Amino acid sequence: MALGRIRTDLALETKEKFEEDNVEIRGVIIEEDYNEEKDIRTTTVKIETENGAKAMGRPQGVYITLEAPNMSVPDEDYHREISKELAKHIRKLVPMEKELTALVVGLGNREVTPDALGPDVVSNLRITRHVIQEYGVQSMGREYANSISGLVPGVMAQTGMETLEIIKGVVDETKPDVVFAVDALAARSTKRLNRTIQITDTGINPGSGVGNHRNGLSEETLGVKVIGIGVPTVVDAATIVQDSMAHLLDTLEESEKKEFLEEMIAPSLHSMFVTPKDVDETVKRLSYTISEGLNMAFEQA
Amino acid sequence: MALGRIRTDLALETKEKFEEDNVEIRGVIIEEDYNEEKDIRTTTVKIETENGAKAMGRPQGVYITLEAPNMSVPDEDYHREISKELAKHIRKLVPMEKELTALVVGLGNREVTPDALGPDVVSNLRITRHVIQEYGVQSMGREYANSISGLVPGVMAQTGMETLEIIKGVVDETKPDVVFAVDALAARSTKRLNRTIQITDTGINPGSGVGNHRNGLSEETLGVKVIGIGVPTVVDAATIVQDSMAHLLDTLEESEKKEFLEEMIAPSLHSMFVTPKDVDETVKRLSYTISEGLNMAFEQA
Amino acid sequence: MALGRIRTDLALETKEKFEEDNVEIRGVIIEEDYNEEKDIRTTTVKIETENGAKAMGRPQGVYITLEAPNMSVPDEDYHREISKELAKHIRKLVPMEKELTALVVGLGNREVTPDALGPDVVSNLRITRHVIQEYGVQSMGREYANSISGLVPGVMAQTGMETLEIIKGVVDETKPDVVFAVDALAARSTKRLNRTIQITDTGINPGSGVGNHRNGLSEETLGVKVIGIGVPTVVDAATIVQDSMAHLLDTLEESEKKEFLEEMIAPSLHSMFVTPKDVDETVKRLSYTISEGLNMAFEQA
Amino acid sequence: MALGRIRTDLALETKEKFEEDNVEIRGVIIEEDYNEEKDIRTTTVKIETENGAKAMGRPQGVYITLEAPNMSVPDEDYHREISKELAKHIRKLVPMEKELTALVVGLGNREVTPDALGPDVVSNLRITRHVIQEYGVQSMGREYANSISGLVPGVMAQTGMETLEIIKGVVDETKPDVVFAVDALAARSTKRLNRTIQITDTGINPGSGVGNHRNGLSEETLGVKVIGIGVPTVVDAATIVQDSMAHLLDTLEESEKKEFLEEMIAPSLHSMFVTPKDVDETVKRLSYTISEGLNMAFEQA
Repeated sequence: MALGRIRTDLALETKEKFEEDNVEIRGVIIEEDYNEEKDIRTTTVKIETENGAKAMGRPQGVYITLEAPNMSVPDEDYHREISKELAKHIRKLVPMEKELTALVVGLGNREVTPDALGPDVVSNLRITRHVIQEYGVQSMGREYANSISGLVPGVMAQTGMETLEIIKGVVDETKPDVVFAVDALAARSTKRLNRTIQITDTGINPGSGVGNHRNGLSEETLGVKVIGIGVPTVVDAATIVQDSMAHLLDTLEESEKKEFLEEMIAPSLHSMFVTPKDVDETVKRLSYTISEGLNMAFEQA
Repeated sequence: MALGRIRTDLALETKEKFEEDNVEIRGVIIEEDYNEEKDIRTTTVKIETENGAKAMGRPQGVYITLEAPNMSVPDEDYHREISKELAKHIRKLVPMEKELTALVVGLGNREVTPDALGPDVVSNLRITRHVIQEYGVQSMGREYANSISGLVPGVMAQTGMETLEIIKGVVDETKPDVVFAVDALAARSTKRLNRTIQITDTGINPGSGVGNHRNGLSEETLGVKVIGIGVPTVVDAATIVQDSMAHLLDTLEESEKKEFLEEMIAPSLHSMFVTPKDVDETVKRLSYTISEGLNMAFEQA
Repeated sequence: MALGRIRTDLALETKEKFEEDNVEIRGVIIEEDYNEEKDIRTTTVKIETENGAKAMGRPQGVYITLEAPNMSVPDEDYHREISKELAKHIRKLVPMEKELTALVVGLGNREVTPDALGPDVVSNLRITRHVIQEYGVQSMGREYANSISGLVPGVMAQTGMETLEIIKGVVDETKPDVVFAVDALAARSTKRLNRTIQITDTGINPGSGVGNHRNGLSEETLGVKVIGIGVPTVVDAATIVQDSMAHLLDTLEESEKKEFLEEMIAPSLHSMFVTPKDVDETVKRLSYTISEGLNMAFEQA
Repeated sequence: MALGRIRTDLALETKEKFEEDNVEIRGVIIEEDYNEEKDIRTTTVKIETENGAKAMGRPQGVYITLEAPNMSVPDEDYHREISKELAKHIRKLVPMEKELTALVVGLGNREVTPDALGPDVVSNLRITRHVIQEYGVQSMGREYANSISGLVPGVMAQTGMETLEIIKGVVDETKPDVVFAVDALAARSTKRLNRTIQITDTGINPGSGVGNHRNGLSEETLGVKVIGIGVPTVVDAATIVQDSMAHLLDTLEESEKKEFLEEMIAPSLHSMFVTPKDVDETVKRLSYTISEGLNMAFEQA
């Protein structure tokens, strides 16, 4: 079935798509883990070859996905568990053996509720760089402290600049060891919205995010390691229609299918997104969970 | 074609639905007017009988719809024209022969971008009641001044109260002559989003608005005249799927149809909405256009 | 020394003023308690007679003040201690022997940083009334649950209505057992800013708060018990000048003093307030501490 | 009278200080103009020599101050006049003979009401750079169009970075011809708050602004011309006390004076600011007036 490009920012969903179609991809390794007590499912997709990258439509690297059905529910203890899991994975991708300087970038538009995740994460972070630069590490009351800075670059309609231009400028000027880029993502399935976190060492890819960055943020474009952290908060409106129709389309001839898809999915749908009605509370809570995860990762001795 | 209840807050869309099906409804009068120069289409739907009300699924009264394709575009002069049109219709529905006391209520959730229209409108209004109460009408520098108050009640998840309870309390206490209730609406078609204003003397009906008020705001429930002003800013996600499939479904048997509809439209879709990606700028601009329309209506001598 | 009316919303500061002047007031009982470990000082001022009320310039009742120098510092564990103390005092003033229905009102202007405390508190509360009304207490997963509603009425410049009118309307309509009114207060001394919480069973008094309510919120005006909870976040600009000059003025003759005060304190100063530069973070943190205190008070079995 | 350093960001106030003391400064030229009809006073201070710069405590360059008593009043037509005046002065400082690329930077903390001026200005600007880069100047519907970008860098407590570092990075990357830096300023006198605009070709100087930038933004530090545009929205709390006491102090001996100043102005006052109670509406209005002035300056043919 060739429904055209189903847009998803989750490597996990691309993988599932292949499984549905019973296709095996070489160069892609998948590990799954389910913590029954915490009800957190962890899937690691490793794209190890150029071939795997081509098939998956995304760069070589590691994509870790935490799925937790209760992530969108207000239970403080449960969110703390997720923050811990997130911190653990971050520290695996970025070993903090020595003191680290990290820039956390909150991508997205703080004026659009489902896209405000990145900016919200940065506003809950414990920023330390200016204190360490002024008074030294010992002023932090700990022997060891990472130097953390934060940036909310805004979106192109607000700035007239590519997000990459702004971040590249700031990276060149302040020279962090690593960039963490936090973004609201688009999923293929509404079931995943606000209950999935993807962490990847490949950064943020073009076409990714609610606001659709044109140029990726990666080691290649920024010159330093980039860890991408994302939560799907929207589904493209066109995707929802395609998905809902999938079974129905199976009853039709191939030529009929194509015609229907072209006719039925109004072009305007491609500039629309689908999001849950309670997106405000959920994004607020999730952004706190992620900033706590980052705070934990940065502050562990 | 019985697709079940297509949800729309626009009387205009209900009317169109009947036209599509070539059904004529008694007790409903429709007038259309197109101003070519300004590119504003005005449709007035008058529901005059109990029968018409039943067929249309909404109370007897007048529903005026302004459609202006450029309403979502940033052109200050054009928006001023729409404000003027709006003011004109408001003054027809609420003749301001003597000094009026009006309460403008901004319904919706200011934390959810497409639902912030009502709260944004109230924050741009020229509030006068407290000045007139303290210093008299003459202090306004005009011979004649309406007494305008404003309220942003919030939504049930934030307050634990029905919006009706809050407004009824405030109306009983402050006794305005008329209530204007401004709300973000749900349309059936994405084409109408952010380019349509509905003004009605029936108030706000149950099931209306992005946040789905359970109890209507009307003369019956509040004891004073209620003018509802709304702009469709979202489409229910389920509606979009239904609509996209309409033609496809025509190829199927009636029994197959029902089955597909039940299977395909995931229940979770009913708690989702579809909205344009640039909803932040558009809602900000439209809320300004509407508050200017209200300001003009209130301030003309 | 008669510096005219030194404006303060803290009963504690009025008391100190008398102590400075070595005046003892009959009908006013004072208890002090200092928890060294937690570094929290608790002062209870009980105004027990009409005479005491006159001398203190505020109604008969209990005024509890928590002073904690670290309250303005970001230490989560410490803030939890303060929330606990607050919950303890609330439960003493409002015994929760049976299920309670409480309305929490967030006074102040959410657009002015030091005045946003009240609105911020309400947005962090766990609201339950709508759930209990719809699904019953058992739906809360506990045997026992208080019915909590919340309201952010706005300020007169935004609404054209007295805050009292709005709240009275909502109280008459929804009939809570008790109202909690949370407000940003004015202190006399900058030392108290953002490190003091006052809890009182007399509600909110006229002239109180950053925005200066003209009509008090009390059992007398609302018909139900009103607990006032406030944090001083500003000092009146005129007060700061007066206080800074106190010693200097002592060197002058009484007639010179009066002249200086009239000349020196520009009338415009009375429409100004003084606030710390880091007021944004501090108010955010304190509002969270207070809503947690309220959540704890409401949820203990 | 040596009250120590009276802090003001307005060259005009420094000049007045010298006049009070009957001191004439060489190398500083002053021109005044009063438009009676519009009630706008324009003062141009030109610091032309190194000596003048030393005396005035600020770099050589042009400082234009517009004073308009009604600037803090909501009169749309009057604000348009101020926007026009502002546009006129901008075009004198930055001749727009050929197409210009300009970066407008909104300094300050959007979470603190009086410091939100800069961020608010940027959010009302018409940003064009991304459209011109993608589709060319002709896509703007005009023969001629300046390329405008905007940036809200945040403050050091939020980012951990010097504002200069962020802006320098972005300037190096995007290479604008000129930077406009908009900031909320500190005045010495409350009379000037929210009714004065200062425009200078010297950029933003250290110690300037509500948030106190440590490193200036100037041609020297950024490598491109920097126009500073500022409105005083606060007065330092310590300044208000000093100023109120000025006359009183005149009655004292020099040695007494010093003692009083040291004792009376509590160190905590230096971390406080004074601002009008209606700062929210005023800053919103002024930021709109300034962005309109910039829009006009950029869009005139």
